[in-house]
Amino acid sequence: MMRPQIDETHDPERRSWVESANGHGDFPIQNLPLGVFSPLGGQPRGGVAIGDQILDLSLAARSSLFEGAARDGLDAAAGRTLNAFLGGAPDTRRALRQRLSALLAVGAPDRAEVETWLYPADRCQMHLPARIGDYTDFYAGIHHALNVGRLFRPDNPLLPNYKHLPIGYHGRASSVRVSGAPVVRPQGQRKAPDAEAPVFAPSQRLDIELELGVWIGQGNALGQPIAIDAADCHIAGLCLLNDWSARDLQAWEYQPLGPFLAKNFMTTISPWIVTAEALAPFRIAQPTRPDQDPAPLPYLWSQDDQGHGAYAIDLEVSIATPAMRTRGDAPFTIAQGSASNLYWTLAQLVTHHTSNGCDLHPGDLLGTGTISTPDERGVGSFLELTQGGQKPFALPDGETRTFLQDGDVVRLNARASAAGFVGIGFGDCIGRIAPSVTA
Amino acid sequence: MMRPQIDETHDPERRSWVESANGHGDFPIQNLPLGVFSPLGGQPRGGVAIGDQILDLSLAARSSLFEGAARDGLDAAAGRTLNAFLGGAPDTRRALRQRLSALLAVGAPDRAEVETWLYPADRCQMHLPARIGDYTDFYAGIHHALNVGRLFRPDNPLLPNYKHLPIGYHGRASSVRVSGAPVVRPQGQRKAPDAEAPVFAPSQRLDIELELGVWIGQGNALGQPIAIDAADCHIAGLCLLNDWSARDLQAWEYQPLGPFLAKNFMTTISPWIVTAEALAPFRIAQPTRPDQDPAPLPYLWSQDDQGHGAYAIDLEVSIATPAMRTRGDAPFTIAQGSASNLYWTLAQLVTHHTSNGCDLHPGDLLGTGTISTPDERGVGSFLELTQGGQKPFALPDGETRTFLQDGDVVRLNARASAAGFVGIGFGDCIGRIAPSVTA
Repeated sequence: MMRPQIDETHDPERRSWVESANGHGDFPIQNLPLGVFSPLGGQPRGGVAIGDQILDLSLAARSSLFEGAARDGLDAAAGRTLNAFLGGAPDTRRALRQRLSALLAVGAPDRAEVETWLYPADRCQMHLPARIGDYTDFYAGIHHALNVGRLFRPDNPLLPNYKHLPIGYHGRASSVRVSGAPVVRPQGQRKAPDAEAPVFAPSQRLDIELELGVWIGQGNALGQPIAIDAADCHIAGLCLLNDWSARDLQAWEYQPLGPFLAKNFMTTISPWIVTAEALAPFRIAQPTRPDQDPAPLPYLWSQDDQGHGAYAIDLEVSIATPAMRTRGDAPFTIAQGSASNLYWTLAQLVTHHTSNGCDLHPGDLLGTGTISTPDERGVGSFLELTQGGQKPFALPDGETRTFLQDGDVVRLNARASAAGFVGIGFGDCIGRIAPSVTA
Repeated sequence: MMRPQIDETHDPERRSWVESANGHGDFPIQNLPLGVFSPLGGQPRGGVAIGDQILDLSLAARSSLFEGAARDGLDAAAGRTLNAFLGGAPDTRRALRQRLSALLAVGAPDRAEVETWLYPADRCQMHLPARIGDYTDFYAGIHHALNVGRLFRPDNPLLPNYKHLPIGYHGRASSVRVSGAPVVRPQGQRKAPDAEAPVFAPSQRLDIELELGVWIGQGNALGQPIAIDAADCHIAGLCLLNDWSARDLQAWEYQPLGPFLAKNFMTTISPWIVTAEALAPFRIAQPTRPDQDPAPLPYLWSQDDQGHGAYAIDLEVSIATPAMRTRGDAPFTIAQGSASNLYWTLAQLVTHHTSNGCDLHPGDLLGTGTISTPDERGVGSFLELTQGGQKPFALPDGETRTFLQDGDVVRLNARASAAGFVGIGFGDCIGRIAPSVTA
């Protein structure tokens, strides 16, 4: 079996001497996600989130507390980007995780040394965890595809290819940013249906897309597809991803080659890579995810993937408008869903992507596509929430939204949970809408 | 005026002491394109093509014959990739060009030293000239858009947005390769119109797309569009680009998000960057390119670009089938066209791409889209040549093709020419079709 397995690092009894980790919603000792951060005035380097602290891997790399595969993993993760770590053998990821878990557990003999590697997370800046070679966005959320399809084709919302192959397209790697970077409202061409000609102006239909991001670990050579049974080995971890979308630009530009400027002005991701190893307890079996009917072609089908391809990850979108912040209100939750609503498994995305010989590389990023629920409680875009902008969405105190307004802050969160295990989270994926910069 | 200007390096009387450069179809002293090469047994490094030789910039960088901006340009161009050179000020590109031109000209006093920097090109291996951050492919060849549109919509071939904005989509950067790399026939899903379900098999409709590639020089920050009058400053040079396409995969997968696996298995480029400076004499005025009617929106319009936005570059596609090679026949020319058939200028592609704030970076690659002529003598794809595969194309000695067969070798060539100037070429952009690798 090639996907990561449950081991002592998932023990629900294990607690950390970093007190804030115990009961932490996102970063208990069972998570240990990796990212790249800089402490105040320092250079970017690899780190691990533990409670409200970040463990500095560049300091850890100077110690003699690591050896063998854990040392290899540490050396690959200590620098400016995690590409080398992602491209390493899954064994080195697991070994580093096991060693860090032991060092951070209550009773660890080397606590005094490890304590010197910690920074308070709120005084650190996060960076992109890897140099992203290519970014691909899929469309694997079937309820999103159905909801959007119904807006245009009420009687026949799913296109004929949808259940045969994972639809995807290439996104823009250069404009991916980590949580917190401002989202400048894009300008662009739009044309009203009854207008003679398009206008160039700030987008009026700025939207979110709630997605999971998939960090590619080891890659494949050009011309050498990744078989479905091997695909899990190439997935190093997950993050949250908000694929900001300008619906008015998209409607005018997307024929015949797909979305372009409607998407590539910005993509926000959560900065921590929640590793495939950390997620091992949360792989769930059918029928908790959509049934694949018709059966996928053989290159996309494996027994293990059919049984364990989905993830028990709950997703949430909240918004804080300027008025809400002025009143001191908490952010308002507008959607709660689950990653189990993805039609295609992550392994199927990887295998399909490489089935023509296309080469993936460590640090490549895949988006799953917008994840929506069958009902309206968990739809991952305003396009769906407002039925194409026709039905404003009610916020507290009489406010409404069809699409995003300047000053709005959108936050994505996620949490993996399963009976008998300590749940883990992804951290924040936040963006605040800034006005267009006009010349 | 911000585009490169004509100077002494374009003097048609200037000849080189590298004898093979004089009268060379591609690489006379007026060209001096840059690339990355390795001599037998050596590491990759920057080089300049001159006749049938390559000048080693890493050797040049050890000499004292360069100073000031030329030295800056040289230092940036001598290493493993040309990204730093591309991202440098256009002044450094021009200064290096002027210095190299002087050193290679007949009568140069330092010939003896410069001679030690030369390698025979046919004993060197070429590499990608830059690390490509993102690759974007446009659709700016209006006759290609018309020809393809007619196959599907005979009465209304151009979509309503075509003359308002440059249609483009993101391609895959990882699978771009230089001329000579084998093109493995991709496998993938296709579905015949009357079939119940798709099959997964080697593509039967493997095609070419004849394009120019645009190398981005200096980039822009996220959120800061490049104005049309400044766009030429961000174009460092051009190459040839063959956007191999599997039409059967494309037809099945492309709704609703555009082409994906039909394109990303491979893109071949010519290895030499023909610089914007070398191309200065070949910028031509309307009405030799398609009239832009309706007038583009103001952000896409400038007087200088309207007057000088097109390039006088002739393009050619030839094929050599296994049977032709067995007979010892020369490659057979199947298309001859001109880059002046692009509807949008390269500056308009850059400005539109960044108009929403999207950031470009040095070494990003843009494809123009397939360039076809109004008549059938210069169409840049088999899709057009054969009217969607319905009308086989006749080759010598009774052979025919609808799409490419295993063993076929396709070559793209291009040549810029203008009265009173020495024409320059792009070198080869070659790919040979290899059979699918089936498990």
